[in-house]
Amino acid sequence: MTGLSPDTAARILLSQVCEPGDPVMGALVRAAGAPGALELVQGSATAGTPEVQGRLEAYRRRWQGVSTRDPGLLVGSVADQQVTVVTPECPGWPRALDDLGARAPLLLWWRGREPSPVYTARAVAVVGARAATAYGTHVAGELAADLGARGVLVVSGAAYGVDAAAHRGSLAVGAPTVAVLACGVERAYPTGNAALLDRVVAESGAVVSELPPGSHPTRLRFLERNRVIAALARGVVVVEAAARSGSLRTLREAAELGRVTMAIPGPVTSAMSVGAHEAVRTGQAQLVTGAQDVLDLVGALGEHVSDERRAPPMLRDQLDRDSALVLEAMPTDRSVGPAGLVAITGLTPVQVIGALGVLSALGLVRTRPEGWRLTMAALGG
Amino acid sequence: MTGLSPDTAARILLSQVCEPGDPVMGALVRAAGAPGALELVQGSATAGTPEVQGRLEAYRRRWQGVSTRDPGLLVGSVADQQVTVVTPECPGWPRALDDLGARAPLLLWWRGREPSPVYTARAVAVVGARAATAYGTHVAGELAADLGARGVLVVSGAAYGVDAAAHRGSLAVGAPTVAVLACGVERAYPTGNAALLDRVVAESGAVVSELPPGSHPTRLRFLERNRVIAALARGVVVVEAAARSGSLRTLREAAELGRVTMAIPGPVTSAMSVGAHEAVRTGQAQLVTGAQDVLDLVGALGEHVSDERRAPPMLRDQLDRDSALVLEAMPTDRSVGPAGLVAITGLTPVQVIGALGVLSALGLVRTRPEGWRLTMAALGG
Repeated sequence: MTGLSPDTAARILLSQVCEPGDPVMGALVRAAGAPGALELVQGSATAGTPEVQGRLEAYRRRWQGVSTRDPGLLVGSVADQQVTVVTPECPGWPRALDDLGARAPLLLWWRGREPSPVYTARAVAVVGARAATAYGTHVAGELAADLGARGVLVVSGAAYGVDAAAHRGSLAVGAPTVAVLACGVERAYPTGNAALLDRVVAESGAVVSELPPGSHPTRLRFLERNRVIAALARGVVVVEAAARSGSLRTLREAAELGRVTMAIPGPVTSAMSVGAHEAVRTGQAQLVTGAQDVLDLVGALGEHVSDERRAPPMLRDQLDRDSALVLEAMPTDRSVGPAGLVAITGLTPVQVIGALGVLSALGLVRTRPEGWRLTMAALGG
Repeated sequence: MTGLSPDTAARILLSQVCEPGDPVMGALVRAAGAPGALELVQGSATAGTPEVQGRLEAYRRRWQGVSTRDPGLLVGSVADQQVTVVTPECPGWPRALDDLGARAPLLLWWRGREPSPVYTARAVAVVGARAATAYGTHVAGELAADLGARGVLVVSGAAYGVDAAAHRGSLAVGAPTVAVLACGVERAYPTGNAALLDRVVAESGAVVSELPPGSHPTRLRFLERNRVIAALARGVVVVEAAARSGSLRTLREAAELGRVTMAIPGPVTSAMSVGAHEAVRTGQAQLVTGAQDVLDLVGALGEHVSDERRAPPMLRDQLDRDSALVLEAMPTDRSVGPAGLVAITGLTPVQVIGALGVLSALGLVRTRPEGWRLTMAALGG
């Protein structure tokens, strides 16, 4: 298999040695580039902080067990299923994912219609309970249909209950929909929704995942999948959620990303609406009753959602010595390359990269095409 | 019939010549006392502003048609129904009604257990649609029962649907409840709830109204009745309300009085929950799912609810000359009597009283035991 860029090839291999949402891997890739991070994993150099060093050793152990070290083989294994690899280098990469900072996916396995910015700019996530009531699936389906009819791309997780009803609602009006999985895209999970996933792909939508083909779902992967759903969308609507539901976690992820958080009310006599009501009651979500309410709130946002994550000021007091040194060395008004930071701090390149990884994971610095830069959170904190 | 104080006797007669919530009558009574206001109505003196003069003439016309000019006869006509007259002079007068300012009832006809401050201090209003669904009446009944069991006095309007369900819920747990009518207390309105109203009275509750015995309900009286329900309670819960429902007006009254405004959500597929959802969506009410949520919000208030009504600053630019003169003459740091204002402004006593009536109706001044005083709204505006 040829045609993979060094960056894409490295990202495919790196995604086999870490779990979704790993901020240390994300920071290493941002600091050294994916090929540089892969070299670090394949080599034996030490990194700056004990945390980064610990993670690096874990990646190296896992690298020993990777069965397919040829990324082209992995891509080829799912090529007949209309699967492509999308990375931040691709024009179709959903830029909204960059708001996740160091927790952004390294890449997406994309089964179905090729992504485009137009395709994802007006995305709204509709999520909720697996054990949804008839009311919940009815409302989710109507909402997704109304949103789809108004040109909104509905994103969900393909789970039973609300998720599946949302995908079906979009399909019912001929609108594309995107399902984000917590396993390899070639897997039909849950198996009962296999036909639905095929329909999503056949009808101009996509089934996507950051996990390599062959990956099975785990609890952690479900949780991290929710951050991708939240990041892809401009707003998240919870349709039914029991108390302490996973959907409420998605709402929190969404709120941290500056997304609009919404919940559909239901009968107070229904256990499946307790979480949605709680979210409204505590100000974690705004009450919406249908597509118009959602568009009123989501449309009120600018075209680009704020991508600065907030870090509480106290964070900088808890930094290790290297990270504190690098943070102090960052210019406040422009970007700087790792080489510049090496010169200022006297640290080694690997120490600087490790420190940048920590700072990036904390939302204090971020990469720009021209180098590293302090975030608004770091400047304001 | 003897034993009525001059104040009570005058209030009974005055309530026969004006409609509920008449701010000009309220202001006249506050300025001149009820006997003084009655003298004004029975005499032929002119008042300061065209508005006050116009009202006064209407009272005089109506006075000519009053059939029972002996207040004792009116009291005697309902004495066998356990009805007493409660006025601001009585220790049992619900002080919360004073928050209505010039729109406070002149008196209450009180059928049932004699009122006491203890009895009304923890009152919550539960109101909603007449055409309630089974869900609405179920939830209203449960809510009122849970509130009653926790020592909360449930106040409502005895209408079909949510109101009746709320009264029944309280009675079901042996808790007293108060029904506020838009007609004479001796009338069973609506007639289908006659047995319910008798039960309310028999089981330590009360049926109350500011309208004299024999009065029939009108649209205006229903609307003004809602202000009494809102004022009596520390918070108002709307259970079911269609779009543009009268319950939403009660919420607005309650908000203006500084009461806690709450709404119970329901299925978004139900037309009878549209108003409640709209109230939450627009911030007019907080979402509550049951008695605990209500107590969390109502209990968070101090023992006495703020009694200053807000008037937009622009109001003072629209005042007539007399009222503007009196407003300017008001001391900012203490109370003043009408005589003091006569001396400062050079207006006649009747002109001053008329101006105070206008200012009071606008929420810019209010009476204290020691005289008239600017409100917070007037000072801050």
